[in-house]
Amino acid sequence: MSNNSAGAIAPELIADLAAASRILAAQGVVDGFGHVSLRHPGAPDRYLMARSIAPALVTPADIIEYDLDSNAVNANGRASFLERFIHGEIYKARADIHSIVHSHSPSVVPFGLVDVTLQAMFHNAAFIAAGVPVFDIREKFGATNMLIGNAEKGEALAYVMGKKDIVLMRAHGSVACGPTLQTAVFRAVYTEVNARIQHWTIALKPGATIAALDDEEGRLADIVNQTAGMRAWDLWRTEVRAGVN
Amino acid sequence: MSNNSAGAIAPELIADLAAASRILAAQGVVDGFGHVSLRHPGAPDRYLMARSIAPALVTPADIIEYDLDSNAVNANGRASFLERFIHGEIYKARADIHSIVHSHSPSVVPFGLVDVTLQAMFHNAAFIAAGVPVFDIREKFGATNMLIGNAEKGEALAYVMGKKDIVLMRAHGSVACGPTLQTAVFRAVYTEVNARIQHWTIALKPGATIAALDDEEGRLADIVNQTAGMRAWDLWRTEVRAGVN
Amino acid sequence: MSNNSAGAIAPELIADLAAASRILAAQGVVDGFGHVSLRHPGAPDRYLMARSIAPALVTPADIIEYDLDSNAVNANGRASFLERFIHGEIYKARADIHSIVHSHSPSVVPFGLVDVTLQAMFHNAAFIAAGVPVFDIREKFGATNMLIGNAEKGEALAYVMGKKDIVLMRAHGSVACGPTLQTAVFRAVYTEVNARIQHWTIALKPGATIAALDDEEGRLADIVNQTAGMRAWDLWRTEVRAGVN
Amino acid sequence: MSNNSAGAIAPELIADLAAASRILAAQGVVDGFGHVSLRHPGAPDRYLMARSIAPALVTPADIIEYDLDSNAVNANGRASFLERFIHGEIYKARADIHSIVHSHSPSVVPFGLVDVTLQAMFHNAAFIAAGVPVFDIREKFGATNMLIGNAEKGEALAYVMGKKDIVLMRAHGSVACGPTLQTAVFRAVYTEVNARIQHWTIALKPGATIAALDDEEGRLADIVNQTAGMRAWDLWRTEVRAGVN
Repeated sequence: MSNNSAGAIAPELIADLAAASRILAAQGVVDGFGHVSLRHPGAPDRYLMARSIAPALVTPADIIEYDLDSNAVNANGRASFLERFIHGEIYKARADIHSIVHSHSPSVVPFGLVDVTLQAMFHNAAFIAAGVPVFDIREKFGATNMLIGNAEKGEALAYVMGKKDIVLMRAHGSVACGPTLQTAVFRAVYTEVNARIQHWTIALKPGATIAALDDEEGRLADIVNQTAGMRAWDLWRTEVRAGVN
Repeated sequence: MSNNSAGAIAPELIADLAAASRILAAQGVVDGFGHVSLRHPGAPDRYLMARSIAPALVTPADIIEYDLDSNAVNANGRASFLERFIHGEIYKARADIHSIVHSHSPSVVPFGLVDVTLQAMFHNAAFIAAGVPVFDIREKFGATNMLIGNAEKGEALAYVMGKKDIVLMRAHGSVACGPTLQTAVFRAVYTEVNARIQHWTIALKPGATIAALDDEEGRLADIVNQTAGMRAWDLWRTEVRAGVN
Repeated sequence: MSNNSAGAIAPELIADLAAASRILAAQGVVDGFGHVSLRHPGAPDRYLMARSIAPALVTPADIIEYDLDSNAVNANGRASFLERFIHGEIYKARADIHSIVHSHSPSVVPFGLVDVTLQAMFHNAAFIAAGVPVFDIREKFGATNMLIGNAEKGEALAYVMGKKDIVLMRAHGSVACGPTLQTAVFRAVYTEVNARIQHWTIALKPGATIAALDDEEGRLADIVNQTAGMRAWDLWRTEVRAGVN
Repeated sequence: MSNNSAGAIAPELIADLAAASRILAAQGVVDGFGHVSLRHPGAPDRYLMARSIAPALVTPADIIEYDLDSNAVNANGRASFLERFIHGEIYKARADIHSIVHSHSPSVVPFGLVDVTLQAMFHNAAFIAAGVPVFDIREKFGATNMLIGNAEKGEALAYVMGKKDIVLMRAHGSVACGPTLQTAVFRAVYTEVNARIQHWTIALKPGATIAALDDEEGRLADIVNQTAGMRAWDLWRTEVRAGVN
């Protein structure tokens, strides 16, 4: 560990963070790409995330500590994700967020490509009912390689996300956030499931009003997801146990 | 066992009930959520269901006995599903039903969100031909967390289901029932398959009349499903044998 | 073996027939239901098919010999499929057919429910280009349990199929045939894949003419499928080798 | 090795080429059919490709060397793919291409059947933004078995592809190319993912303009795919390691 580290973290927590990467891969939310981070439990100006590696392969030894400018504190030669600024800038802007998932889950991408709003199709995706902004990198930065490759782009993304816990990225992917690692992972998984359900719903009766969760139903159901809903995490954690103790 | 238990059940039956949970997970009907119950074979005022745990992880040791008000008889510290009232209230209302599956299987959810009726696309989903009511919790209870979290909500759901063996729940999921554990599981699995087929059928020729099973075809085919159809259960039971002897 | 048997068959052939069942299950063409048969290589008035069992579980010991009226010759207490008459009656009507697959593969069912013709979307499904009749059991038999449960229904199905090698069954499933076991399995698998491609193609541009294979392209490509195409069988046979030597 | 061989290739490279076949199968891009080739690293007038065998089964011992007329240099009795001319003729026409994948991945086929242009839905499929020509074998060759079974047909295909790195083949499949084996595989995988996303996007809002990657975004994002994007290859290579060291 570097002298600059904010301090050691419990090995179980690091193992959970590595497991979260594998869970997201197992659930089809990420493939060779995508990442999940955790705000440092003892130092709110630091966050933890794997080195640049496919999510299904992450082990505790791959976890790096970053400051909120997304400088690696203890890289020791390990390469960082190009898009780590997504994480640093959202943590800067939102003290209530302690975990962030970035993915390209394929059912979600279409909602950033045409003018159709992602809605909460069922209670497990309740947090979506609060609203889903779409970030188009082209508006501020013109033609780019589409990546959130520096702090300025991360800041712009965080600005568009505002007070929501999700933001879609045009022709790229999405970000789901939460107050805990477990909730961020839960939301990322059910955002993908929800997107699939919405595709089917719209195709079933194009143009019809969808009886989605309204704001208040979304708020109430999200509370359950963050408590009783944790048995999904228990299942997923068990399923990847062999890979990350 | 508590002194209040209606009596011991054959271990094979408990193993089958635990296996049913794992079958539903393996068939993609449930994920971290959902549950299956069985009316007590010796006491019609009791039912059996797993403690609050992901369906893929259920073992015989997780099975709890409930009375029809959904009070646990032998919890011994084990937590109960919040939505156990779905089961208790349907068992109260319908003496002919001996097993119930509740799930959020994603292909089915859209039929509770727009005004399109789920129909029986093929003989394996024949029981659907009798009709599929939709329960909207908002109509009686306003904005809620969407869950059937007490007896009153369970009773309202059972009322909407009426004499059918299936009910959809707006922005939530569905319930499939049967006279045996095997038939309830069979119906839950083929409700999901049928929903997928109906999505494709509607997309193939929007607005066209679908040559679905009519009432009488549904009634006749359902008899076969409950007899010869049991070889599907034999397959599924074999596939989860390693998990639940 | 019964005294009435037309004679022993090479064990490798029986193993291939059992493997064909498992291949169809592995490829998602059949689930707990569906069956594949082979005309007896030494006696054209006999055919071979598994006892009533889920396709994924078939072993050589499950294979029964039938006459063309679908009477079991050597059942020895083993139960027969209710729909064996599909096989017997097609073998009666079509001397050129030596193997038959019956399935409920879900992508195919919609083409029997609305008036949209299944077409050959790509060369691997070339045999479809010759045309795909649809059998509606209701037309001749009124309300039934939908099954081909006797010879008369099997004969009616074979009549509608005519000189084609495929027939769809309204609200039920389909039948794919061929001059060899390998070709019948190949056609059943690619009928399912083709149906999926056609669903996507129609959704991509509803109402557009599809540049499907025409009759002559279908005839020419089918020849390749029956020769070089056999490397698909080699792969599938290898994949189920552990189950059926 | 034949006396005509252009020289031995590093065993690791041959293992990578065999692994590429298995990766494409594992990713659902190929099934029993399809092939991937590599231009000989030491002799630009030669290329390497497996004998006629299902992609999931390829081992280093199956790799054959071909000249650009697609004559096998060291077949030693091993059968060649009928469509090897796809590879030879593209290598002739395009000195910048060093690896080629031919597949029938099912989501892509529809874009060759109706007049809808495949577009780059997200950054991982950036190379598509340069444009996607469609080859219809019927235009020059009339009714055929649909295969690129000789040099003349391969030349016609390469001509239609022109300066792009992808070409669709009507009622057949597609070809994806790249400057390295890893990039060709990456592009083939994300062409399939991209096609699925485009199907969903079009269904979400039929007729809407899709905010796909434009030319310049495509060019810039493709550079990242060819560098940082290689961690997808690292994952896939690890996943098939057991099969091909």
